[in-house]
Amino acid sequence: MKSPTTISKATIDRLPLYFRTLRLAQDEGLDIISSDELGRRLGITPEQIRKDLASFGQFGKKGVGYFVNELKRNVGGILGLDNHWNIAIIGIGHLGAALANFHNFVTLGFNLVALFDEDPDVIGTTVNHVKVEDIANLEQIVKERQIHIGIIAVPAAFAQGVADKLVSAGVKGIWNFAPIKMEVPAGMHIVNEDLSVGLSSLSYHITRQ
Amino acid sequence: MKSPTTISKATIDRLPLYFRTLRLAQDEGLDIISSDELGRRLGITPEQIRKDLASFGQFGKKGVGYFVNELKRNVGGILGLDNHWNIAIIGIGHLGAALANFHNFVTLGFNLVALFDEDPDVIGTTVNHVKVEDIANLEQIVKERQIHIGIIAVPAAFAQGVADKLVSAGVKGIWNFAPIKMEVPAGMHIVNEDLSVGLSSLSYHITRQ
Repeated sequence: MKSPTTISKATIDRLPLYFRTLRLAQDEGLDIISSDELGRRLGITPEQIRKDLASFGQFGKKGVGYFVNELKRNVGGILGLDNHWNIAIIGIGHLGAALANFHNFVTLGFNLVALFDEDPDVIGTTVNHVKVEDIANLEQIVKERQIHIGIIAVPAAFAQGVADKLVSAGVKGIWNFAPIKMEVPAGMHIVNEDLSVGLSSLSYHITRQ
Repeated sequence: MKSPTTISKATIDRLPLYFRTLRLAQDEGLDIISSDELGRRLGITPEQIRKDLASFGQFGKKGVGYFVNELKRNVGGILGLDNHWNIAIIGIGHLGAALANFHNFVTLGFNLVALFDEDPDVIGTTVNHVKVEDIANLEQIVKERQIHIGIIAVPAAFAQGVADKLVSAGVKGIWNFAPIKMEVPAGMHIVNEDLSVGLSSLSYHITRQ
């Protein structure tokens, strides 16, 4: 496997899509998948796929295709999914509850170890077998349970405050669903999720239909 | 504005991110934004941004930056957001309810005109001022209200059946949250949303910390 420093950001951004597609192919029982078929499923040219995957090593057999399980395991390894990161969700409204119930996180190897809310009616309830705890105890619990990733699903007005607490408690990364520009210290990894991106992209395509 | 056929898929995929970032900049009251600042916020090089935006026309002033409102309006136009598409959400569990409450869809110009579920306890309730209707009436209502985009938030096992109904009722596009490989006729636009992509991407970055 080549050093990841030689891999372009565009390739890195495609890795989770490869992983997703390989997981679905595995679910369908496919053993081998061609770059043509991967390309068709991903909307990427087969040439790009061969180039992307070649930058990590030799996962395919010329004229046959890629071995689905092996390639998935390798892409998962590159993505660091075998670290089995501990994750916590902050804000258990509809979005937080939907995320807590999201079966794929388990499939990907993430451990959901804590849920937090500030609403007394929500604290103490369980979602997907995990108890919702008082957000007042966020920092303490993040440290005790060695939570690596905090998922922010609170309203925009509270998001920065939650991020600050997560940072001070020592998380490695933040996955933010609040539509604000979050300020985090240099070196803290943050992925801002904006669900309107997918819908806007769809708008583009149907506009040109 | 150049013909969109000359624009690469990679550029198109970045447009919703530009739009999102410009919207946040507008919310902050910024009038002008440089390609350096856009680049910092997006994690894209300023050169790439200048190249992307130049492919649509002249939106900036050399040495000054881009005019936020003008550029946002133009990118929004390219994305087709000024079509004010009618959207419907199918499956009003936690995810569907979170989507129905998502303020950004309104900000982007989408009209939420229908919600559907099959659970008698959910049918008749309202989410964000929209009544949940019986999924049995999906095709009829999609036609009557000229729904352009169907958002599938039902469990995986029911997703293909819902997609088939949306297609036969004449939607232009489908935004699918179910983790399955959906079969739709050629020419039907579908965007598959997988929330685990963002989390996997974060995993990659913290693994290499």
